[in-house]
Amino acid sequence: MKVHWKGETKDIKTLWREGSEVKMIDQRVLPHRFEILTLKNYRETADSIKDMVCRGAGAIGCAAGYAIAQAALEAKNMDINQFTDYMDRASDYVYKTRPTAVNLFRAVERCLEAGSAGEVSERVHKVVGEADKIAEEDLEASKRMGEYGSDLIAEGHRILTHCNAGALAFIDYGTALSPIRFAQKQGKKPFVWVDETRPRCQGTRLTAWELMQEGIDYALIVDNAAGYFMQRGEVNLVIVGADRVTANGDVANKIGTYEKAVVANENNIPFYVAAPRMTFDLKTETGWEVEIEERDLEEVTKMWGKIQEGELKNIQIPADGTVARNPSFDITPARYISGFITEKGIIKPPFEENIRKNFK
Amino acid sequence: MKVHWKGETKDIKTLWREGSEVKMIDQRVLPHRFEILTLKNYRETADSIKDMVCRGAGAIGCAAGYAIAQAALEAKNMDINQFTDYMDRASDYVYKTRPTAVNLFRAVERCLEAGSAGEVSERVHKVVGEADKIAEEDLEASKRMGEYGSDLIAEGHRILTHCNAGALAFIDYGTALSPIRFAQKQGKKPFVWVDETRPRCQGTRLTAWELMQEGIDYALIVDNAAGYFMQRGEVNLVIVGADRVTANGDVANKIGTYEKAVVANENNIPFYVAAPRMTFDLKTETGWEVEIEERDLEEVTKMWGKIQEGELKNIQIPADGTVARNPSFDITPARYISGFITEKGIIKPPFEENIRKNFK
Repeated sequence: MKVHWKGETKDIKTLWREGSEVKMIDQRVLPHRFEILTLKNYRETADSIKDMVCRGAGAIGCAAGYAIAQAALEAKNMDINQFTDYMDRASDYVYKTRPTAVNLFRAVERCLEAGSAGEVSERVHKVVGEADKIAEEDLEASKRMGEYGSDLIAEGHRILTHCNAGALAFIDYGTALSPIRFAQKQGKKPFVWVDETRPRCQGTRLTAWELMQEGIDYALIVDNAAGYFMQRGEVNLVIVGADRVTANGDVANKIGTYEKAVVANENNIPFYVAAPRMTFDLKTETGWEVEIEERDLEEVTKMWGKIQEGELKNIQIPADGTVARNPSFDITPARYISGFITEKGIIKPPFEENIRKNFK
Repeated sequence: MKVHWKGETKDIKTLWREGSEVKMIDQRVLPHRFEILTLKNYRETADSIKDMVCRGAGAIGCAAGYAIAQAALEAKNMDINQFTDYMDRASDYVYKTRPTAVNLFRAVERCLEAGSAGEVSERVHKVVGEADKIAEEDLEASKRMGEYGSDLIAEGHRILTHCNAGALAFIDYGTALSPIRFAQKQGKKPFVWVDETRPRCQGTRLTAWELMQEGIDYALIVDNAAGYFMQRGEVNLVIVGADRVTANGDVANKIGTYEKAVVANENNIPFYVAAPRMTFDLKTETGWEVEIEERDLEEVTKMWGKIQEGELKNIQIPADGTVARNPSFDITPARYISGFITEKGIIKPPFEENIRKNFK
């Protein structure tokens, strides 16, 4: 992704591995500061997932894979039993960081599986190789989704997106934003309505920032205004990402996705979900089986931002002692979804049949 | 409404007249500070509408009426021509404060009409009387809506509301919150889901605060989470207010109301609009004729709150130079509405017929 920072334009990834260290854009301080953190061991990398230094299905998966790779590198001089114990503890630790994103579980499983046979040194080598492969696949998948998805975008289309399924949610390009990036390259001049995406405002802080960096036209709106623009014919297409797609085509994604899907459906606006194959969880039949994370209430009652140049502060919006609830994801039933943009092409309904067919 | 402040419990109205002065709760600093402003002339009162010291259809109407009353009192020693000129200028000034709320136009018209004949002294007397009457009617209407509306609420019902159609939006009691207040008095123990209502967070700052003062159970949620709780069967009923109801039953109300109505409809949840008769605008056929106010973009890009005890600050959420759009109201088509709670009872569909019948 392009990043303009202090007069320079850089091409940078969301996170990457340098030997036994993981480097990562600190998304908690964007868009007001641009900082790269260095995570020295698996615990630091796992904590970065939990603390949302990085977020988004793909980025979480890659970070989880790298955390397991770090654990393997840390345990490279142990005997086989100690190594297995160390890897078990590490994977438990990584598993517990975020409960909803299937990419995290999948990445850990793949790395453990890769390192499940042979000498310790061979296992270490294979775990690290698998983690790198997950990141490469993520990047490749994002590009393919961009190519396939851009076919849905006509010249001058106005596209609504929710949350950040952009480069920052993956290694680069993103899922929902990748087709828009490709459409821009193709000269179609897309315009993006950016839902702010309360409570964490990933739309405001990340999506608007990414689009600004790329020079793509956009307008930030409060989540409440999406329906207004849909109703007035000012939205041609909705594209969102997914944290998990179940076998029947239900989608677990950022809270508010369900409302946008219902309102888009009511206004006959195509509603697409861009998701790499790794996000599909065929072991889970329907969205109702997906555990929904309720996060810290302070996400609802507090907000942070820039108070003056160089100074970020947290403010409390409601009265002291206000009671709140904070579910972080919701389930969009398959019937509201027009299609899935994947790295192998677009999956159309009937989803139950076509998703299984695609994964044979 | 009950107000607990610095250890005392007071019963207080949103705004009232004391001679030629208007007293008003400053809603811009709630819930962190409780302050009563004194507005010495019609310009100050009109500016208080524009600056949203008071907001909400009823409160705006009453404030507009009082502003015209103040103008009349200010012009009481003029000759008839000067008086008429002064009143014209005053009404122009008041008209220009907020374009969407019909109560404002109605209140100004009623006061001007009341003072349209006779000697100056008689006109002044009648204008002031009419302004007082508007406030009395507002209070009485809120109580009646509470009584009628509470019939819709069963024991333990969970009710979603959007924005603040509470006591603070009127003289007292409110519209959407009045039935909930009455249900609470009747021992039905209602529970309220409070949409935070971005961008100005009237749910967070005002509705949650009002419910807390009254001891009514509630939970604050981000607007995005309303659909989540509807979908899971945790919302029995939606009650919102209205800024304007058109002849066909379309409703202009706070941005986001449309989305809530569509999602409630999709989940077979009754969706009621509580609105006094003054909010019905039978001269306007449909919602599409209502002018929608686009407010300052800083409402979207900035937020204010408490940084520490006694200190309120404004923060900027997105990057510098972020582009935004900010429509403040939307139109909920009549087909999504189950009924109107008015001071004369509940109006059910078909609205085109039943609204006209009700206003004969």
